[in-house]
Amino acid sequence: MNLPAPIEQLIGELAKFPGVGRRSAERMALDLVVADRARLRALADALHRVDDEISVCKTCGYFTIEGEKCLSCDTDRDGSVLLVVERPLDVVAIEKAGGFRGRYHVLGGHLSPLKGITPAQLRMEQLFQRAANDFVRELILATSPSVEGDATALYIARHVDREGLSITRLGRGMPMGGSLEFSDAGTLRMAIEGRRSLVDR
Amino acid sequence: MNLPAPIEQLIGELAKFPGVGRRSAERMALDLVVADRARLRALADALHRVDDEISVCKTCGYFTIEGEKCLSCDTDRDGSVLLVVERPLDVVAIEKAGGFRGRYHVLGGHLSPLKGITPAQLRMEQLFQRAANDFVRELILATSPSVEGDATALYIARHVDREGLSITRLGRGMPMGGSLEFSDAGTLRMAIEGRRSLVDR
Repeated sequence: MNLPAPIEQLIGELAKFPGVGRRSAERMALDLVVADRARLRALADALHRVDDEISVCKTCGYFTIEGEKCLSCDTDRDGSVLLVVERPLDVVAIEKAGGFRGRYHVLGGHLSPLKGITPAQLRMEQLFQRAANDFVRELILATSPSVEGDATALYIARHVDREGLSITRLGRGMPMGGSLEFSDAGTLRMAIEGRRSLVDR
Repeated sequence: MNLPAPIEQLIGELAKFPGVGRRSAERMALDLVVADRARLRALADALHRVDDEISVCKTCGYFTIEGEKCLSCDTDRDGSVLLVVERPLDVVAIEKAGGFRGRYHVLGGHLSPLKGITPAQLRMEQLFQRAANDFVRELILATSPSVEGDATALYIARHVDREGLSITRLGRGMPMGGSLEFSDAGTLRMAIEGRRSLVDR
């Protein structure tokens, strides 16, 4: 005797989520089946709503609500500065931090030849097209501070070469509230390398 | 700028799963939105199918496929032995182990006065009714080997008192392949207490 087929099917779908194994998927599925059916239906409805209303912007890679302008690439925001990130959640994080009024470009990941992620798998061509516009004065590369993220930034910097376009990357070093004692070696090296003068003599 | 409302709604639903926090729910939702839409629809379909086809058996508490007899309480299985478990997955585990041909009763949890789980919240009345049937000769209490599980078993043993009905609980002690060195104190105490004679002199 196994679990009934419809429940097995649901477990199979849930187990496709990143970081969700068979055991967690079982737990989630049975929770839904045993819990009130309203929750099960609410989840199905939320899925349908996302399917109907949300698409990925062809220009910048961020999410667009069907029939609306994409908030991150085509608004009153300053089009002369383009901030390049890997994932949509990176956009949300930077917006929550506040202070940036330019536009975004979501690559959809970072280069990783070992995993078969080449420039063609990312929104790279679209970035080159946007960066080719004379209106753009600065490209801020905010790929993740990792080997792959750095390689991706370097790849972009090499391929976008235009008079009058400055290419920068996010500052690196100690995080706010971080302690020297518990920092990893890589962060400390970056922090020393990226030191700033406090007093100029 | 936040994530679009439909995505926030989906995150909210996913975060209701046990053990899934806001961050995991975000990761799951964005994975669905960015990944192919076929997977998103397959999950919605699986949910609808469970909603349409699966119900919880009013007698034994196990899952029933709509229009079919409940596999665990109403088949050709031996109705004289009733095995009482807390959760539907316990039934699957025992079936996988093999060897048991009786019927099941799923309580839906264990007693926990601190969490407000009283006999009324469990499938306790139905169990008493089933156990009252003269046909039943043995009640195997397979609640979890924990303080709450033991309390639940004790509660049942006290309330089901009928001539000719033996009440047992699962054996306790060292698990197969377990090592003495890494066993917890509770298991070792149970193992010593529950020792069996190998040679009778």
